[in-house]
Amino acid sequence: MSDPTATIERDNPATSQPQQPSGAPVVSFATSPEQYKHWRLDVDGPVATATLAVDEHGGLVEGYELKMNSYDLGVDIELYDLVQRLRFEHPEVKAVVMTGGLERMFCAGANIRMLAASPHSWKVNFCKFTNETRNGIEDATENSGQRWIAALNGTAAGGGYELALACDDIVLIDDGASVVSLPEVPLLGVLPGTGGLTRVVDKRHVRKDRADLFATKSEGYRGKTALEWGLIDATVPRNAWATEIRKRALEAAQASTRDGEQGIKLTPLERSTDGDTITYPHVSATIDRAGRRVDIVLTGPSEAPPADATAIHGQGAAYWPLALTRELDDLILHLRTNELEMGTWVLRTTGDQDLVLQYDAQLEELADNWLVNEINHYLKRTLKRLDVTSRSLISVIEPGSAFVGVLAEVALASDRQYMLDGVYEDIDPDAEPATIRLTSANTGRYPMGNGLSRLQSRFWGRPDEFERATATVGTDLDAKAADAAGLVTMALDDIDFEDELRIVLEERASLSPDALTGMEANHRFVGPETVETKVFGRLTAWQNWIFIRPNASGPEGALRRFGSGQKGSYDKKRV
Amino acid sequence: MSDPTATIERDNPATSQPQQPSGAPVVSFATSPEQYKHWRLDVDGPVATATLAVDEHGGLVEGYELKMNSYDLGVDIELYDLVQRLRFEHPEVKAVVMTGGLERMFCAGANIRMLAASPHSWKVNFCKFTNETRNGIEDATENSGQRWIAALNGTAAGGGYELALACDDIVLIDDGASVVSLPEVPLLGVLPGTGGLTRVVDKRHVRKDRADLFATKSEGYRGKTALEWGLIDATVPRNAWATEIRKRALEAAQASTRDGEQGIKLTPLERSTDGDTITYPHVSATIDRAGRRVDIVLTGPSEAPPADATAIHGQGAAYWPLALTRELDDLILHLRTNELEMGTWVLRTTGDQDLVLQYDAQLEELADNWLVNEINHYLKRTLKRLDVTSRSLISVIEPGSAFVGVLAEVALASDRQYMLDGVYEDIDPDAEPATIRLTSANTGRYPMGNGLSRLQSRFWGRPDEFERATATVGTDLDAKAADAAGLVTMALDDIDFEDELRIVLEERASLSPDALTGMEANHRFVGPETVETKVFGRLTAWQNWIFIRPNASGPEGALRRFGSGQKGSYDKKRV
Repeated sequence: MSDPTATIERDNPATSQPQQPSGAPVVSFATSPEQYKHWRLDVDGPVATATLAVDEHGGLVEGYELKMNSYDLGVDIELYDLVQRLRFEHPEVKAVVMTGGLERMFCAGANIRMLAASPHSWKVNFCKFTNETRNGIEDATENSGQRWIAALNGTAAGGGYELALACDDIVLIDDGASVVSLPEVPLLGVLPGTGGLTRVVDKRHVRKDRADLFATKSEGYRGKTALEWGLIDATVPRNAWATEIRKRALEAAQASTRDGEQGIKLTPLERSTDGDTITYPHVSATIDRAGRRVDIVLTGPSEAPPADATAIHGQGAAYWPLALTRELDDLILHLRTNELEMGTWVLRTTGDQDLVLQYDAQLEELADNWLVNEINHYLKRTLKRLDVTSRSLISVIEPGSAFVGVLAEVALASDRQYMLDGVYEDIDPDAEPATIRLTSANTGRYPMGNGLSRLQSRFWGRPDEFERATATVGTDLDAKAADAAGLVTMALDDIDFEDELRIVLEERASLSPDALTGMEANHRFVGPETVETKVFGRLTAWQNWIFIRPNASGPEGALRRFGSGQKGSYDKKRV
Repeated sequence: MSDPTATIERDNPATSQPQQPSGAPVVSFATSPEQYKHWRLDVDGPVATATLAVDEHGGLVEGYELKMNSYDLGVDIELYDLVQRLRFEHPEVKAVVMTGGLERMFCAGANIRMLAASPHSWKVNFCKFTNETRNGIEDATENSGQRWIAALNGTAAGGGYELALACDDIVLIDDGASVVSLPEVPLLGVLPGTGGLTRVVDKRHVRKDRADLFATKSEGYRGKTALEWGLIDATVPRNAWATEIRKRALEAAQASTRDGEQGIKLTPLERSTDGDTITYPHVSATIDRAGRRVDIVLTGPSEAPPADATAIHGQGAAYWPLALTRELDDLILHLRTNELEMGTWVLRTTGDQDLVLQYDAQLEELADNWLVNEINHYLKRTLKRLDVTSRSLISVIEPGSAFVGVLAEVALASDRQYMLDGVYEDIDPDAEPATIRLTSANTGRYPMGNGLSRLQSRFWGRPDEFERATATVGTDLDAKAADAAGLVTMALDDIDFEDELRIVLEERASLSPDALTGMEANHRFVGPETVETKVFGRLTAWQNWIFIRPNASGPEGALRRFGSGQKGSYDKKRV
């Protein structure tokens, strides 16, 4: 960090980033409305309008044009930023109208040439991020009183209709031409995999046979049938369009309980890179390329929390829980997209446990405040990113760590938790042995996608063990106590600890990355399923399978042949 | 059928079958205990013992030896037969002990060389069938009072442990060497995909971090840890083994409410093949290779049902609902395994609706009789096979059809239902137009894997439409009424009907088989998820993806290199 060649990156537009070792572009997720190429955000009192007007020549990667409002990852990075800013910077906004800036075409979905030319890993990462952004839109409607309305002023095809599906209200213009459609199966030989199939039947409750007709009919359906089947909520003639959309937006705003007045500014993140070390004020990551892992450290606050909600507001983006969440979010996205071979993330925390607990208590106490509510839901969404991250997550709990409350949730999100019993005798024999502590942060404040707390998931079907663990809420637990409460995988003294951890990390790095991804995806989601977990589980897994099959991505596959005038040539076997 | 070259097949052992056009063997699912090569069934009063003693040289396909009690599809076909016979032929059996016939090795799981040498479609089909058989074991425990006990008298590795996981009670011998293990991830780069990952966390409620340790530790765990973590239910020293297993079996038998005395004989199915037509007494199938579809007809009973339970027992396997179910079951398995390119199954029914309804009423009325209970659950399992079949299912409802009660359930299992409104004027203008009728068969008697009736699934999240449909129970519905009740996809008069159907079938045949499989798998399971739907959804979809990735199945993949002394060479990217 003292290296003079270290660079401070601020708001770099995505495409100005350097390249990964593989030659793929390094993607940055930092942007802001002034830099948007593809979206326009207009705020008019309680109603915001997000207009998609894709810059055809503004693709994130060379080699395709984003025609007909089709999108790539760059378009979605802007959308993600827009959704976040509406929540934090615009408490006055209570309804969001998403509409298109083109005539007749709201959005043609993910760009096919981009998909066809992308490596498998890019496709999968792209879909994961777009899924998370769509889940974030639903989260805003559900938890922020910001109701999203899809004002489809033209055709919404494929991913375009999937965008609409994330909104709470879908209105399609009745102009004799505009349709909603999911043409992926008939035209591309892939699935509408950004939640489309799942949301049609599980959110909008379209009958299975109609969903089948819809998802196999490339030309889609116009307003009348779409409305009858439940694919949309209303169809409105062109001459009544503006009035009706305005009316629906104002009604949604009126029904909202969102009560903030002045937003806070999501200031640019401070991130410095020094070789393989990335440093933010409260988060750091060091990449061990040979070991194929990343050592991540989350740092606690350096001072006591502000006195009250007004003071939190005054700190804005510098408020420790928000700052930490933003940095962790950015790091997750960076590593997931740009560091594909770093298969294990080792998660540590450091800092003053008392201070962490004070912030933790404040997040609970002031949860009804609009800003604290936003922070809690943002932290929830960021922890959910960990749950669907295809990396092995190992938490290490040592002297000096701060796995309490909100930070303990990071340990519970991990695949394993290793805790040192005692101290490193050689290094610091006088240190205080590590302790952990559960709080209300771990008993439901940050539910997983399946609706369970991570503690409920951990002890699913074991009510006695669940009770025993929750009985420790508020108590410091040393390694033996944490082990007895079932909160750590292993508690070892320092004679065994370092060796064990070294072997664990070496072994992990030696296993098939694909098998680990599949294994973790199955272990992490026990119990009930929701639209969200179905999208990441069933739908995504099938889509990943289809993406890699020659029928889609082979030289004669439908995805590769799209636009060539030739149809895909299929292996006819049903598998 | 009158062709003198037609052959009647009875109990052909699997390997004596001819070849598919692709050169793959044609697999027969017909067998019986006298023909078993790999299993031994011993019945001793209320306790049966199923002993796995695989014939190393009895593989279904050339090229591998089934060492260490490893299995292939042929071993599982016998197990399926054994499970079925215990239910129908042995009402006196109330506990089933599954154990191994080798020293020290209960079962080494699916044969790796077989897997490595198999095409993707074979792997997927194999896993689907083995999953269904394991679900059938759980179904016997849950619904027949036949409790399965895994008596692991040696190591249960991979699929061997997954077999145990399907049992209600897992006992591992404590001999200082025997373990349970899931070595797929570390040794083979694939998943324990026959329910293993799901059942460990979702059935046995093993903590996620311990499940992670377990599924990455190729050498597995011995009794003490396995018991502590919940991987097994007991560990028993060698000297107490026989006594303890006997004791547990007798206790299970004593607790059972199973009350039949005399079983019925599952006589060999009569199946004749004439070119591309397969005919059973109540089911027929004609393959249209050019159209890539199969036309399937289910035929109603020809006479009124027997008077009572005793008379049903007297008819045995000839009792229409049982005969029909067995034939349909066999046909599904045959087509799924041997006719991979026939992507659409067109389902029709024919017969006297009144007679079907009489049988249907009897299945409800006598549901508490042990044999009728078995028939109902067998029909339920067979309908579930349709739900997870990777073929497009289209029901066609015409004059003369008999889609009422149990047979209407076949229509509801289909992806689409096409109903002729009126008659074929050119063919039989005086025919009675088709009607359908719902009964209690459609409101919960045959739940899907997600625990819902097919009617609940159809109207998931639409209580008004569900009420409207269920209000028609007991009423004959013509095409217009069926359409109004939401029970058919389209009701068309004969001017449009044939054209529409032809176009639908042609279009279906033109689509990517993979995309259709993924789409149908997502549409068919709305609402809640269970261990069963998670196994077929999340787990299977991930496994299918992993199976096709070079890290597993490429020339340097772990599956292909297993046993060569070389480890798999992996693309290190996490996707």
